[in-house]
Amino acid sequence: MKTVAVIGALDTKSDEFLYLKTRIEREGIKTLVVDTGILGSPGFSPDISAAAVAREAGENLEQMRREHSRQKSNDTMLKGAALTVRRLHEEGKIDGVITMGGGRGTIVGGEVMRNLPVGFPKVMVSTQATNGYAQHMFEGINDTFVINSLVDISGLNDILKMVMNKAAVTIAGMVKMEQAPLEKTRPRIAMSMLGITTPCVSAVQRRLEQAGFETLVFHSNGLGGTCMEKMIRQGWIDGTADITTAELTPGELGGIGYAGPERLTGGADMGIPQVVVPGAMDIIDFAPPESVPEKYLDRRFIMHVTSLKVVRTSVSENRHMGKLMAGKLNQSKGKAVVAFPLRGLSANDCEGTPFYDREADMALLEALEENLRNDIPIYKYDCHINDEAFADAVAGLVQKVMIS
Amino acid sequence: MKTVAVIGALDTKSDEFLYLKTRIEREGIKTLVVDTGILGSPGFSPDISAAAVAREAGENLEQMRREHSRQKSNDTMLKGAALTVRRLHEEGKIDGVITMGGGRGTIVGGEVMRNLPVGFPKVMVSTQATNGYAQHMFEGINDTFVINSLVDISGLNDILKMVMNKAAVTIAGMVKMEQAPLEKTRPRIAMSMLGITTPCVSAVQRRLEQAGFETLVFHSNGLGGTCMEKMIRQGWIDGTADITTAELTPGELGGIGYAGPERLTGGADMGIPQVVVPGAMDIIDFAPPESVPEKYLDRRFIMHVTSLKVVRTSVSENRHMGKLMAGKLNQSKGKAVVAFPLRGLSANDCEGTPFYDREADMALLEALEENLRNDIPIYKYDCHINDEAFADAVAGLVQKVMIS
Repeated sequence: MKTVAVIGALDTKSDEFLYLKTRIEREGIKTLVVDTGILGSPGFSPDISAAAVAREAGENLEQMRREHSRQKSNDTMLKGAALTVRRLHEEGKIDGVITMGGGRGTIVGGEVMRNLPVGFPKVMVSTQATNGYAQHMFEGINDTFVINSLVDISGLNDILKMVMNKAAVTIAGMVKMEQAPLEKTRPRIAMSMLGITTPCVSAVQRRLEQAGFETLVFHSNGLGGTCMEKMIRQGWIDGTADITTAELTPGELGGIGYAGPERLTGGADMGIPQVVVPGAMDIIDFAPPESVPEKYLDRRFIMHVTSLKVVRTSVSENRHMGKLMAGKLNQSKGKAVVAFPLRGLSANDCEGTPFYDREADMALLEALEENLRNDIPIYKYDCHINDEAFADAVAGLVQKVMIS
Repeated sequence: MKTVAVIGALDTKSDEFLYLKTRIEREGIKTLVVDTGILGSPGFSPDISAAAVAREAGENLEQMRREHSRQKSNDTMLKGAALTVRRLHEEGKIDGVITMGGGRGTIVGGEVMRNLPVGFPKVMVSTQATNGYAQHMFEGINDTFVINSLVDISGLNDILKMVMNKAAVTIAGMVKMEQAPLEKTRPRIAMSMLGITTPCVSAVQRRLEQAGFETLVFHSNGLGGTCMEKMIRQGWIDGTADITTAELTPGELGGIGYAGPERLTGGADMGIPQVVVPGAMDIIDFAPPESVPEKYLDRRFIMHVTSLKVVRTSVSENRHMGKLMAGKLNQSKGKAVVAFPLRGLSANDCEGTPFYDREADMALLEALEENLRNDIPIYKYDCHINDEAFADAVAGLVQKVMIS
């Protein structure tokens, strides 16, 4: 029989969790209840106690209670819950996980989800879902199904029962699903895309699909790149056509869409073949427009819809970014190549368009040339990133590195 | 057989939607596909065409295409999709709905979900889920199950198929579920709560549950109150113990947690009995702390965790808020009463605590007294909101108005 881990605070929400547990079991699924309550005794016996969760994080629950440090207790249960569920998954003891909670329960749930692989069935019931200012709680939870509980997890009532019923059939359906084993029939190429590099990415994608590759396109909005790197590290990906590395820029220059320090490191560490294009590195995105720092106020800019102000990167910034890219690629354990379109890095940066700045682009190229390991070649093409000829070249490079 | 409406852009994403449709049908569910594509012809025949969707919004698709107004086309399909799905639901032609998309598809999906009642099975697959800066797209989608597609909806690959498989079993499970008909066994009382009014709300809740009522607690963080008002209007609620009206304040004074102009109007319009307490109206919440406007910088404040700065409301602001509350309550078609705790409106506003300001509280009271309809009584209690005696009084008032 399949087993679902049920994670939450049994001290304050035991009636609700008992209902959820019973409802899941009615679907013919076993449950394994993990208590993350700090304040008091659980209303019913969990399979893994709060004390055991604290122990998993190297702490003693009774002692923490005596210390009255709310921050430490919260951090401990967060860490302990994530480690516990991760271990249960690795030991093959669970087939899915569900969390339910308010502010604190959502933070714990997020940490649990973040530490589980893509593909593993995950459901979160949260009072904070779709709550704009609470959104940071959900970042990185991958393919978790999230539902707002509508009412607080505070008393059994028809509405909460209705939501829990849905959550129960959802997690049950997912763990029972005849999931076609993700046997790889074709090599998988991860690709990174923004609107301003879409013609290139789509053209490369068509060519690679025709050549027998499976392509996975990630949106280079910060979230997509984070997900791509994570999936590369989880072994889902066989090679990259990383055409839109713009997600590196915000970490150095500000703005939105940063994919974190792990960006452009997964392929290097995993030793998979990488074809890298500095796509869209002519831009820094700011939203809202008022958030543009003073130092960029005299820059060329484009208003992209009303809520996004796009600023042109400078010669010195591009030099800095080229060096940073080279440093990351130099860690590559596998084959890596760079493809550089000499006539512009995005739809904005094209002869006759406002961001066209050959000097800035060349600064990026020179920094790559100066800093890249000798065995990482830079192929230069006298075309724009979105030209068909460039797509031909990139598709060809992918096929070449994937064979060699 | 149950039917699920499948909503999306068949011009650019027809392979993906065909897969999703087929996968849902494999679960023994009928599908009804609604095309929202603007640009081109659908890759397979939908049940309701894009032209019909545009017509539902009073527009002509062919003419819009000739006009090349992207904004108008987007607005039309948004409106048309929401109206179409709403109508299909009202005609009893569908038992659930699923949407899938990127930026535009998520906006359309959000509008579809917002216009469907709580309880109706709703699933959204979105590239924007858990993306902090895209969160406004999801506001008000109620009990929609949301999952991030991980990869762009751009080509059929293992990852997207895996996500679609999960979405298919989820919507199928929900529409097939033997949902206990939500027959009302006890009268339902909606309650509003913040941390600083929790002792009062919990105590009233206990008393009401013991007296045979069902209580639904909503978190007064802007989202909860919006949901509460919507559920009142949908006929889910029989009476209110609206103990935390703090969600009215941001609309007038700034800060976070505004529940919109509908707050404190549902009960009035629906004519259900209302017991209203101006709970937590001593505060204005700002996050991040830097967002506090200049005019409040010399106010008393509290740092609530590191990311939230809480500012005390003034005499004149409270007078304004009292008048506003009275104006809303004066629209009541049913029985309404106000209960006022004379010794403080929240845990912050208590003798000996930094926000205690009897003058400001009295200004609120006076404004209520001066502006409320004569037949809406104000019961004054010489206690703090979180005193047991006040909870006794409020619980008594709820029972009284529910009987009369």
